[in-house]
Amino acid sequence: GVLGSGDFARSLAVRLVCSGFKVVVGSRNPKRKASLFPAAAEVTFQAEAVKKADVIFVAIFREHYSTLCDLADVLAGKILVDVSNNTEINHHKESNAEYLASLFPACTVVKGFNVVSAWTLQSGARDGNKQVLICSNNQEAKRAVAEIAQVMGFTPVDMGCMSSACEIENIPLRLLPAWKIPIFLALGLFLCFFTYNLIRQVIHPYIREQKNKLYKIPIEVVNTTLPCVSYVMLSLVYLPGVLAACSQLYYGTKYRRFPDWLDQWLQHRKQIGLLSFFCAALHAVYSLCLPMRRSHRYLLIETAVKQAVEKKMTIWVEEEVWRMEIYISVGIIALGLLSLLAITSLPSIANSLNWREFSFIQ
Amino acid sequence: GVLGSGDFARSLAVRLVCSGFKVVVGSRNPKRKASLFPAAAEVTFQAEAVKKADVIFVAIFREHYSTLCDLADVLAGKILVDVSNNTEINHHKESNAEYLASLFPACTVVKGFNVVSAWTLQSGARDGNKQVLICSNNQEAKRAVAEIAQVMGFTPVDMGCMSSACEIENIPLRLLPAWKIPIFLALGLFLCFFTYNLIRQVIHPYIREQKNKLYKIPIEVVNTTLPCVSYVMLSLVYLPGVLAACSQLYYGTKYRRFPDWLDQWLQHRKQIGLLSFFCAALHAVYSLCLPMRRSHRYLLIETAVKQAVEKKMTIWVEEEVWRMEIYISVGIIALGLLSLLAITSLPSIANSLNWREFSFIQ
Amino acid sequence: GVLGSGDFARSLAVRLVCSGFKVVVGSRNPKRKASLFPAAAEVTFQAEAVKKADVIFVAIFREHYSTLCDLADVLAGKILVDVSNNTEINHHKESNAEYLASLFPACTVVKGFNVVSAWTLQSGARDGNKQVLICSNNQEAKRAVAEIAQVMGFTPVDMGCMSSACEIENIPLRLLPAWKIPIFLALGLFLCFFTYNLIRQVIHPYIREQKNKLYKIPIEVVNTTLPCVSYVMLSLVYLPGVLAACSQLYYGTKYRRFPDWLDQWLQHRKQIGLLSFFCAALHAVYSLCLPMRRSHRYLLIETAVKQAVEKKMTIWVEEEVWRMEIYISVGIIALGLLSLLAITSLPSIANSLNWREFSFIQ
Repeated sequence: GVLGSGDFARSLAVRLVCSGFKVVVGSRNPKRKASLFPAAAEVTFQAEAVKKADVIFVAIFREHYSTLCDLADVLAGKILVDVSNNTEINHHKESNAEYLASLFPACTVVKGFNVVSAWTLQSGARDGNKQVLICSNNQEAKRAVAEIAQVMGFTPVDMGCMSSACEIENIPLRLLPAWKIPIFLALGLFLCFFTYNLIRQVIHPYIREQKNKLYKIPIEVVNTTLPCVSYVMLSLVYLPGVLAACSQLYYGTKYRRFPDWLDQWLQHRKQIGLLSFFCAALHAVYSLCLPMRRSHRYLLIETAVKQAVEKKMTIWVEEEVWRMEIYISVGIIALGLLSLLAITSLPSIANSLNWREFSFIQ
Repeated sequence: GVLGSGDFARSLAVRLVCSGFKVVVGSRNPKRKASLFPAAAEVTFQAEAVKKADVIFVAIFREHYSTLCDLADVLAGKILVDVSNNTEINHHKESNAEYLASLFPACTVVKGFNVVSAWTLQSGARDGNKQVLICSNNQEAKRAVAEIAQVMGFTPVDMGCMSSACEIENIPLRLLPAWKIPIFLALGLFLCFFTYNLIRQVIHPYIREQKNKLYKIPIEVVNTTLPCVSYVMLSLVYLPGVLAACSQLYYGTKYRRFPDWLDQWLQHRKQIGLLSFFCAALHAVYSLCLPMRRSHRYLLIETAVKQAVEKKMTIWVEEEVWRMEIYISVGIIALGLLSLLAITSLPSIANSLNWREFSFIQ
Repeated sequence: GVLGSGDFARSLAVRLVCSGFKVVVGSRNPKRKASLFPAAAEVTFQAEAVKKADVIFVAIFREHYSTLCDLADVLAGKILVDVSNNTEINHHKESNAEYLASLFPACTVVKGFNVVSAWTLQSGARDGNKQVLICSNNQEAKRAVAEIAQVMGFTPVDMGCMSSACEIENIPLRLLPAWKIPIFLALGLFLCFFTYNLIRQVIHPYIREQKNKLYKIPIEVVNTTLPCVSYVMLSLVYLPGVLAACSQLYYGTKYRRFPDWLDQWLQHRKQIGLLSFFCAALHAVYSLCLPMRRSHRYLLIETAVKQAVEKKMTIWVEEEVWRMEIYISVGIIALGLLSLLAITSLPSIANSLNWREFSFIQ
């Protein structure tokens, strides 16, 4: 059974029918709404629909839950699936599912399907996330809903008892929350270092010696900026651990909570580290592109022509040769090690390591 | 218990014995077959074996299921595990497991272990896929078989009720079905663009000016071909979404099914996108290799020598310098963004994103 | 309930309190220890604590399990969670959890939480592995402990019945065991080839012609060493399969166990292959860096100057051009194919392939 006639209710009905379920839709105005649903789904009055169904998807807004109170008698003993979402994180004190359960104590309430979009429901789980997070205090009801999700082509994930409902309802509202601060940090650092390098490499020689080096902006200036950002970010990964250790030594205990800013910082280390790796990888690609450029070729030929005209046969500077060889060599090794770190941060790799192995690699 | 004496039955017996289970094998000719099984497994007549066992692996072909009908009485109440595979996708109308269940209504049938090869069974789950997909209408039986799989070193995956059996039986017959069309598409595009570039860069100058540029074939021609393929593929990723939106606008509804070709196309977007990224990445590596080549060095020296002999001191062309700097710079940024897209298509990353985050990144 | 007052007991209590559980801690000396636990946890005598709790975490050493025997009566019917670890792999004949179960036959014992560190418990599952492996012979008890783990922010993983306890207890002691031999092998090969290349490229020209080529050590010598290591490792991936096939042909059976050394070798193929890929990738990066070096530029200019002074206009050597083009082209294709192999070895990708697809790609 499906209660409601909105977008989600319709997509749900479409999908359930496609997966071979017998669907009955409960609506306040079945005649007008019938045309919106697939032909195979029976559209009838709410009380009728509830009577015929064992598992009922409540696809209406939290604000209208109370309108179902008239149906309390026919609903008794049924499994209600709360598929609702909120518009804000922690908008209400208790989760929608817990609120529904408190309204209908005679029903078994299961939270689920809210992490799935109407579009995914309708067109099938194609790419991206196929998981349907489910929680309930009743094992049997949870299993029944999980099997429905399975048949519909999703991967049910058991999230435990009803107290997880709030967490599940907050998931669809998230937009990479852990990445916001690290990304703004990286952008800020990039801007600072870019300005400094622009002044040093382009503006200063122009003002002092009237040399036009503007062509350096798209690649050379960016390429000297990226490793600076990468280094600072990398140090920001390891600094909070040191601060945390100092705080523990100072207070002489491991059981004192860290101040909130340090706690936040510790939690963002992974993202900061990955951005540091991203900058380092871009720096590597930029550096490798340097000899491909026209400007590099022109400078090379100009030097060669000058030498040839002056009949200078040798220009080998041992110190410069060594400096470059060591720079590049150390850079490659650093990038190789950072790649290993980045690979172990993939969820499926991290899950196959125990914490001893994980901290060994870190 | 194991019924059957083929390759799979033997490997199954070996593995079960190794995992510490007591194994009894039922055969029509126990004396002749006994030598094929490990010493710890008891080989006896089918009826004998069935009596002694609680969980019975039916390792015989679907065609011979009916020969077990004599054992219907002793089989009653036991758990039968159907491990069979078909030779063709959807060869029979109902899955092997459902057919077995219909023959023995008094038994509990569980589908499982068919996705595992005899070799993996025998040598242990070493690399690759360790999952054993299991489905059954009976929760207890499913759990019992899941625990056996666990002890044998596999990861049991609950696939819900018996109606999934057909899907599970089709899995081992699959050979990257979603990749076939995108790969042929990529190869076709590659051939077309390669021919065009070959004519333009090698054959045309040869015919017109008798210049031998054959050395360009392995790297330069391939390198100008790859980004063309990559671009066309990338546009093919975003085009069907636009067509789908147009079709929805035209018909004024979201609830009309797309035509089949569009549906197929929408489903292959991920694979087309990944091939586009693969071509782009290869193009990057090819481009980076350009200055490493002998031919590059020779051309550079020749130009330098010519300039020196003619005493031309400067060859700087501002426009060409800028064009190259911007080309490379935009290329690196595009590759960086495509890499992010490719990383989010990894299953374990995609599963940690909600659909809002996923579509944001897309 | 938590029995014990060590580091792990305290972290466990902190975490349980934070997750909203009512916690009672059983200690031999509740007055002295109370200050160590969070205020919300009640610290009392062991017998008291056991009476009040349904699920009891036994956070004491295996050696002291027998001291709990006085509590056998009050413990009867409760769920005991064994969180202990050993200091050595397979230190005792039976696992700690099985030993605990044998001491208290009237209790339901669940193994779990031992793979989690005290630090992770205390600070929440932040990064790395969030899995809590659980096993027990009792389904209900296992599910109860799994729900607690879920609420605490971990991902419970059902590892089946008590016989897996030993395996679970060995996990935290592991330190990348499968990687040890392959890594030492790679280092050994690297050293051998490095010495050979050092003698050939640096020491020999120095002794024979007094040429100082020391600058070649950090990049050029390493860069000629890496592909050698990569090739030998790659051949070591495919060799054991050939040996295994020969052994099967020789003995005329697939059901004879391979000798132990071959079995070990077969099990390390994945790691050897990934190291081979790592060396190949490093070789690619080193090669791409060659034209960036000062020494490369100096040599180029010197050649150009020499040519210009001698007025030699052409230095094109068709054979060398072709050799280089083909080298690079084949190298890129090989690296591309190896990347595909490396990507399919990611657990989440491998799990989405069936064995036919997996062996096709291999």
